[in-house]
Amino acid sequence: MPSTTRDALSFPSAQSAQISPYLPISDSQSQPLPSKFHVTLTFATSLDSSLSLSPGVQTALSGPESKSMTHYLRSCHDAILIGVGTALADNPSLNCRIEGVGGYGGEGLERQPRPVILDPKGRWEFSEESKVMRLTKEGKGKAPFVVSNKEMEGQRRAMLECLGGKIIVLPSKPGAGEDSSASSSSTRLKWAEIFKILEGEGIQSVMVEGGGAVINDLLRPENFGLVDTVIITIAPTWLGKGGVLVCPDPRVEGEVRVPVGRLKGVHWLPLGEDVVLCGRPKET
Amino acid sequence: MPSTTRDALSFPSAQSAQISPYLPISDSQSQPLPSKFHVTLTFATSLDSSLSLSPGVQTALSGPESKSMTHYLRSCHDAILIGVGTALADNPSLNCRIEGVGGYGGEGLERQPRPVILDPKGRWEFSEESKVMRLTKEGKGKAPFVVSNKEMEGQRRAMLECLGGKIIVLPSKPGAGEDSSASSSSTRLKWAEIFKILEGEGIQSVMVEGGGAVINDLLRPENFGLVDTVIITIAPTWLGKGGVLVCPDPRVEGEVRVPVGRLKGVHWLPLGEDVVLCGRPKET
Ligand SMILES: NC(=O)c1ccc[n+]([C@@H]2O[C@H](COP(=O)([O-])OP(=O)(O)OC[C@H]3O[C@@H](n4cnc5c(N)ncnc54)[C@H](OP(=O)(O)O)[C@@H]3O)[C@@H](O)[C@H]2O)c1
Ligand SMILES: NC(=O)c1ccc[n+]([C@@H]2O[C@H](COP(=O)([O-])OP(=O)(O)OC[C@H]3O[C@@H](n4cnc5c(N)ncnc54)[C@H](OP(=O)(O)O)[C@@H]3O)[C@@H](O)[C@H]2O)c1
Repeated sequence: MPSTTRDALSFPSAQSAQISPYLPISDSQSQPLPSKFHVTLTFATSLDSSLSLSPGVQTALSGPESKSMTHYLRSCHDAILIGVGTALADNPSLNCRIEGVGGYGGEGLERQPRPVILDPKGRWEFSEESKVMRLTKEGKGKAPFVVSNKEMEGQRRAMLECLGGKIIVLPSKPGAGEDSSASSSSTRLKWAEIFKILEGEGIQSVMVEGGGAVINDLLRPENFGLVDTVIITIAPTWLGKGGVLVCPDPRVEGEVRVPVGRLKGVHWLPLGEDVVLCGRPKET
Repeated sequence: MPSTTRDALSFPSAQSAQISPYLPISDSQSQPLPSKFHVTLTFATSLDSSLSLSPGVQTALSGPESKSMTHYLRSCHDAILIGVGTALADNPSLNCRIEGVGGYGGEGLERQPRPVILDPKGRWEFSEESKVMRLTKEGKGKAPFVVSNKEMEGQRRAMLECLGGKIIVLPSKPGAGEDSSASSSSTRLKWAEIFKILEGEGIQSVMVEGGGAVINDLLRPENFGLVDTVIITIAPTWLGKGGVLVCPDPRVEGEVRVPVGRLKGVHWLPLGEDVVLCGRPKET
């Protein structure tokens, strides 16, 4: 079907073979799903650890090979998750364009991941014209699940549900407002809870793609153990001060600063002008 | 001579062959010196672009293979340069321990680089017990050249000169104090001038090793063109907020922020658990 596969991407098997040991399924062919819920954290940075030139801006960092890799990774997960900051900044597509998945030569929505938007305060003002909705209507991706503390306005909710998406409303925890930490963290959902909700929806693997706040939150020592695999693309460029940084809060033990976290079982894969780092928070 | 080579390092030729195209000489054997002055900028960072956990602290980032590479790189340069901040924080050795160089199996001080300390205000209070001086006395390295705007106190200067080092005093530029930029920049030497001084001393290649202020200064667009080669080791760890960052000042063109700089002709070399990035500021 040339009309549907025209914009399809492919990712060479010599390279996917090096990444697949870090993934919930061993290659892009459908395989038995894992028995354990799998979390992959993935993003692209500059040499100075920026995700973009400034908040609210999308910056093209990595090359075409890395882009194909991202779509290959998406084909290996049941869901992809982003924070509302990224939904607002990037108007992202959140589908998978690897040749052979549903909409790109494959049947139905086969191996298309479910987009999940983390939007506790209901800030995402999507419309039928948002890219992810347009692709859903074209049969090239799934409609998103929105995880929130707030109900969605009726008309928008109807549109979302009609396309096959849904809103998952989590009641704010009683007493959360009295939380002693910064006020913004009172609406922070616990990651263990988020992943449990997704599992309850039949999702067994999720790829968390960003942005900065989401990534830095997952890199906190208390959350990092929930992540199974980290896959980072680094581009040989410096964006300079003022970008959206991947830089977790410092970690102090005794009275001494120590590194926040180190990846185990690492593999570095040069890919075009970029490098891809695969690793695990825990020894396996 | 087992006594002198006991602590010598070696760097495999399969790996040095991948790096040597970026160096002023093509391998660790002495070769004709380049006709043009060569500047290599090199350092090791965490994934979040930190050189160390905090200012004034030395943090072990990279693995043993990367350490051997650093010493291999030193054997390929006439001089290695650091800022006074690093001299104060690290009490660095600044010699080369590759097997076969002078002091480590080789003759005299053959292929030992000249340490250069950039210390405009004369803040480096070295003594005979500073590592670099001890190694000089043991015949395992050269005594440093100190580049400064201030004369050195007589006794310290005598000790330095007796070991074969020297102070190079550059007169502060008239009117530099009236400079409109930040006061600290009034003592900043121009890099073109620094390199010219070194060339006048018979040095034809220099490896700039850090720290943060020196690196960020060289990454500024007006200085970056003076650099021939960049070699960065990245370790798979996050140090967290508050570290000494490699993160240059932002670059604005028109009213729009753009990336500060991108490396050309890049090569990524996985090395132990780290990766080494080689590249050039300019196309060649
Ligand atoms: N290079 C890459 O790979 C990449 C990938 C993705 C995004 N980006 C870039 O990153 C930037 C966006 O990053 P960002 O930091 O502004 O936004 P973000 O991380 O996408 O979203 C942050 C928001 O998500 C919500 N959130 C985060 N953690 C949460 C938790 N534990 N529980 C509940 N809600 C949570 C919060 O919403 P509320 O504030 O409403 O509570 C938070 O403000 C954009 O410039 C985008 O282009 C780059
Ligand atoms: N991971 C690595 O590869 C690596 C390598 C080296 C160092 N480090 C770490 O980096 C940290 C030190 O970095 P730092 O930023 O504090 O110090 P630094 O860059 O070593 O030295 C900064 C000082 O050098 C002088 N200087 C810099 N640019 C100059 C110029 N253009 N002209 C004249 N003088 C100039 C200034 O001295 P005045 O202020 O006196 O004018 C400046 O304060 C330490 O923690 C060290 O362990 C890590």
